[in-house]
Amino acid sequence: MKKTIGILGGMGPLATADLYRKIVALTDAACDNDHIRVYIDSNAAIPDRTAAILSGGQDPVPEMASALKHLEACGADCVIMPCNTAHYFLPRLQAMTRIPFLSMLEATADACAARFPGKSAAVLATKGTLATGLYEQALAARHAACLIPDAWEQDALMRVIYQGVKAGADPETYRADMEQVLDRMTQRGADYFILGCTELPLAAQLLDVRQPTVDPTAELAKAAIRFCGYPVKNGQ
Amino acid sequence: MKKTIGILGGMGPLATADLYRKIVALTDAACDNDHIRVYIDSNAAIPDRTAAILSGGQDPVPEMASALKHLEACGADCVIMPCNTAHYFLPRLQAMTRIPFLSMLEATADACAARFPGKSAAVLATKGTLATGLYEQALAARHAACLIPDAWEQDALMRVIYQGVKAGADPETYRADMEQVLDRMTQRGADYFILGCTELPLAAQLLDVRQPTVDPTAELAKAAIRFCGYPVKNGQ
Repeated sequence: MKKTIGILGGMGPLATADLYRKIVALTDAACDNDHIRVYIDSNAAIPDRTAAILSGGQDPVPEMASALKHLEACGADCVIMPCNTAHYFLPRLQAMTRIPFLSMLEATADACAARFPGKSAAVLATKGTLATGLYEQALAARHAACLIPDAWEQDALMRVIYQGVKAGADPETYRADMEQVLDRMTQRGADYFILGCTELPLAAQLLDVRQPTVDPTAELAKAAIRFCGYPVKNGQ
Repeated sequence: MKKTIGILGGMGPLATADLYRKIVALTDAACDNDHIRVYIDSNAAIPDRTAAILSGGQDPVPEMASALKHLEACGADCVIMPCNTAHYFLPRLQAMTRIPFLSMLEATADACAARFPGKSAAVLATKGTLATGLYEQALAARHAACLIPDAWEQDALMRVIYQGVKAGADPETYRADMEQVLDRMTQRGADYFILGCTELPLAAQLLDVRQPTVDPTAELAKAAIRFCGYPVKNGQ
């Protein structure tokens, strides 16, 4: 019996579309029927994760649990979430279901250790994700060094993510912020960049970023394809 | 209560991702929570629709019905299918559920009549879709003229769709086929092109097609956004 993927989505919607497209593009398939069955609940009503972590915003877990129930009803064999910040709530969600969650942060840290041994990662992420320290822990467990954005850089990244990608703005409105973050962190010793918010691979593609990056959305897609027992394209 | 969309997908998977992305891109939204809740079952096990219509291939309706049940379990308020050929089976599926299907072909024919009054459409589609005559009927009901691809052009389109987009091939391998179809049908009097197989808007984008086109995936996305009572971006 072939395994299936459940995507607990909507955080944000464009990032959910990006994850799904990457699963399709990274599956080594010659026709429709070679692909993986994927269930998605893109629940746009999930409250903002960073606001919940940092400033007492509404708890997102009830709306996430509503989507999880739908994925269970469909019979998903694993659950993945295209939102780095949402992984702070993963233990509470995992306690509600027998379906295993695959962690985007663990998949990313594995890719960092394999592709950039001995190098320093810049962790580009929301303030919520950075406050949890989850990326630092996952990288430290693999002896991978990392740099965290300073206060100005964190503000700039939040503008790229919220006023830029999530708002559907013209990429030129956030080019300067993104390029300054990359330049400043390169000067402080970053060898490569973790695009650790699911809006950032979209921004990097639109802005044609040339620095070495790790795309957690693509790493999660590959982890899910492998979990389901399907071949990854070009052995990537 | 905000309405939700169910996507009966997997026909093919990349076209399903394209429809979902277009719903997100065409919704006038300033943040995650302004978007529509979307449920997707991308059921890659649905047998080929053209083979079922033309050559006694396996009936796709049971696997489509399996996806429909999942969308019902989620509580979708409408169902849309990112596969033109699949619309041949819409009456059988509609008889199984109270959830209204929105027709991609009706939405497209509306757009043709509004955008190209008095002009001739070339219907680019699979042999299965062309055999059903569904596009000709929908256009005729709106007094819109159309041209159908000849035998060579139908073969060329099937190569673009099956050996090209569905197989994930390099676009340059199907550029000549696509361009010849466009040139030949323009010479026969086509004023614009209906990209009437969900793989064809993907091909047209990758090949940077410059002729006037109507994209049924985008028209279906807009019809679904309006059905749910959300604003379409730029009033498109």
